[in-house]
Amino acid sequence: MKIVSYSIRDDEMPALKEWQAQHPDVEVQIEHELLTPESAAKAQGADGVVVYQQLPYDRATLQALHDAGINKMSLRNVGTDNIDMAAAKELGFQITNVSVYSPNAIAEHAAWLMGRLLRREPEYTAKINRHDLRWAPEIGREMRMQTVGVIGTGHIGRVLIDILKGFGAKIVCYDVFKNPELEKEGVYVDNLADLYQQADIVTVHVPSLKENIHMINDDSIAQMKDGVIIINVARGDLVDTDALIRGLDSGKVRAAGLDVYEKEVGVFNEDWEGKAFPDQRLENLLNRKNVIITPHTAFYTETAVKNMVQISHNCNVQLIKGEKADNLVKLD
Amino acid sequence: MKIVSYSIRDDEMPALKEWQAQHPDVEVQIEHELLTPESAAKAQGADGVVVYQQLPYDRATLQALHDAGINKMSLRNVGTDNIDMAAAKELGFQITNVSVYSPNAIAEHAAWLMGRLLRREPEYTAKINRHDLRWAPEIGREMRMQTVGVIGTGHIGRVLIDILKGFGAKIVCYDVFKNPELEKEGVYVDNLADLYQQADIVTVHVPSLKENIHMINDDSIAQMKDGVIIINVARGDLVDTDALIRGLDSGKVRAAGLDVYEKEVGVFNEDWEGKAFPDQRLENLLNRKNVIITPHTAFYTETAVKNMVQISHNCNVQLIKGEKADNLVKLD
Ligand SMILES: NC(=O)c1ccc[n+]([C@@H]2O[C@H](COP(=O)([O-])OP(=O)(O)OC[C@H]3O[C@@H](n4cnc5c(N)ncnc54)[C@H](O)[C@@H]3O)[C@@H](O)[C@H]2O)c1
Ligand SMILES: NC(=O)c1ccc[n+]([C@@H]2O[C@H](COP(=O)([O-])OP(=O)(O)OC[C@H]3O[C@@H](n4cnc5c(N)ncnc54)[C@H](O)[C@@H]3O)[C@@H](O)[C@H]2O)c1
Repeated sequence: MKIVSYSIRDDEMPALKEWQAQHPDVEVQIEHELLTPESAAKAQGADGVVVYQQLPYDRATLQALHDAGINKMSLRNVGTDNIDMAAAKELGFQITNVSVYSPNAIAEHAAWLMGRLLRREPEYTAKINRHDLRWAPEIGREMRMQTVGVIGTGHIGRVLIDILKGFGAKIVCYDVFKNPELEKEGVYVDNLADLYQQADIVTVHVPSLKENIHMINDDSIAQMKDGVIIINVARGDLVDTDALIRGLDSGKVRAAGLDVYEKEVGVFNEDWEGKAFPDQRLENLLNRKNVIITPHTAFYTETAVKNMVQISHNCNVQLIKGEKADNLVKLD
Repeated sequence: MKIVSYSIRDDEMPALKEWQAQHPDVEVQIEHELLTPESAAKAQGADGVVVYQQLPYDRATLQALHDAGINKMSLRNVGTDNIDMAAAKELGFQITNVSVYSPNAIAEHAAWLMGRLLRREPEYTAKINRHDLRWAPEIGREMRMQTVGVIGTGHIGRVLIDILKGFGAKIVCYDVFKNPELEKEGVYVDNLADLYQQADIVTVHVPSLKENIHMINDDSIAQMKDGVIIINVARGDLVDTDALIRGLDSGKVRAAGLDVYEKEVGVFNEDWEGKAFPDQRLENLLNRKNVIITPHTAFYTETAVKNMVQISHNCNVQLIKGEKADNLVKLD
């Protein structure tokens, strides 16, 4: 059995080597380049491919894989937006993704962003970098004194709630489907208006379904407490960036921590050093001392990467063996 | 009844105003300057003073207060090292401090330092500041995967343990006096050697008693895991800084987070911008991307400051009224 694994990064190698040692029967051909109509030919003779890229899996690419005799493709990530589903279906592809690799990676990142903002870390870091070691006047606040509004209590939201409880924070949460265990604890409010009214920190952990796009907007921000902190480590389009900037300008929003951004594709995970920065609105946010931007790094932990690599290879083996594969992607 | 409160900072004003509103019978004279032999005269006619400074409460200062008719002094902080105890005793002083103002402020700060180091935040911040938005190769680690060794399970250590449990981290701890509740949970190890052997992160929360000075030294670091993270938000002299630097140089110590430093007095809480930096060893640490120094800011939260201001004024009233005062300092 042979799998070709495309665009393997150095930080994925330890997890892949471990997987190879555990699967001596599977030959893994490691390719550092992306999957393209050209590089697809490298899969000739293999039984499946494992992939992870922002570059689209378009018709030409899928056709080239098909011509190389491959129709079993396993994504190392969750997102499937960049797959030409119609082409995949027509060409008889079976595709898996990794839907859950480490909710903790994301939830912990959200907590760290909250901590840095509560303690005004960017202001201190700037002071300390210029050798100003005075502590006043950037007084911090304690997590245990905060009421945190968690929107979305799925995999990630629930882990975050456990983390915040450890700090002694008060939790209020909202989900369209209530989790029975959390419901017993009485932490749900009935609607977002209640959550916005109570929360010192609002953090979103919902998917970017059409109805959730720009759920954080002028109207919802107006309902929040003065001096609210907004956290988004879910999807960029959940937050109306212009509304957020208006909130920051007016002081209504005290601070924001963002691991995602509406227009991040093609901007995040690129090196703009010495080049014209392509997004003035993002630049505006980056220049604020009360805003922390991380370029979609919440997922980027050793544990998550290990799971992404190993689960995707397991899924590809299941597809090749004709077993019922975990994480099968519906092609429609 | 009249109290003179020295060296009140702007960030202390809200808490002091709140206290004044609750104590209309007490006149509080606010002085922004430090207590010195000269400024002591301002307390003439008052019943007690409330103070907080690094400057010593030496014989001349205490004598000047005594000459002004004052022998009731309440510290807004915990430390009493800067009091001339013999003089205080001779002059019939009664002194209180604030021994516990917010263990959470300190414990949370330790957790935030851990998070920033696990996620390699200083490296990302430097990258992001120069517009390099790539996430690889600075892969992070998750708190839930760490074994944290907590040395000292008093007020602060115990709060930290609750925080870390929320993340799902594994805890091993050591204290010369075991806390019965924690003992039931089976988290104690019998000696520091066991703790050092197991811990991915070592954090100290003990007082700087003579026997604890330099407890983190070449020998203890040698017993720790390769790639250990060391956290000190307790007292600077608990860590042998030269040994720590050797550990960082060799790579034995992966990272360190320090809110305190052996030679911090006269260096922290000063502005060195544009001046010759006075401590080359501290500069060495400040320049490392795997070391985070905060200039004794762990305590500096709204909650802690409020408690320091209000508890100290309450204690001063108790002294003035001749009641048994909380937090009476033993003068010896
Ligand atoms: N930053 C990153 O690196 C990263 C990594 C993984 C996932 N994510 C994102 O995190 C988010 C949450 O992921 P998850 O694994 O917890 O998802 P999940 O499916 O387990 O949970 C999502 C929850 O949101 C609820 N929900 C949906 N719409 C809602 C609404 N309008 N109001 C309230 N609740 C609503 C659902 O009922 C569900 O309980 C997703 O947007 C995901 O894309 C980000
Ligand atoms: N960074 C800051 O701003 C800040 C603020 C407040 C306190 N602190 C420091 O934090 C430390 C802990 O404070 P706390 O309020 O938790 O103190 P605490 O007295 O409540 O607890 C200290 C614990 O350490 C234990 N201990 C003493 N020596 C030990 C040893 N050699 N090995 C193991 N255990 C030992 C004691 O038995 C006790 O349980 C102190 O050093 C204090 O000065 C720092």
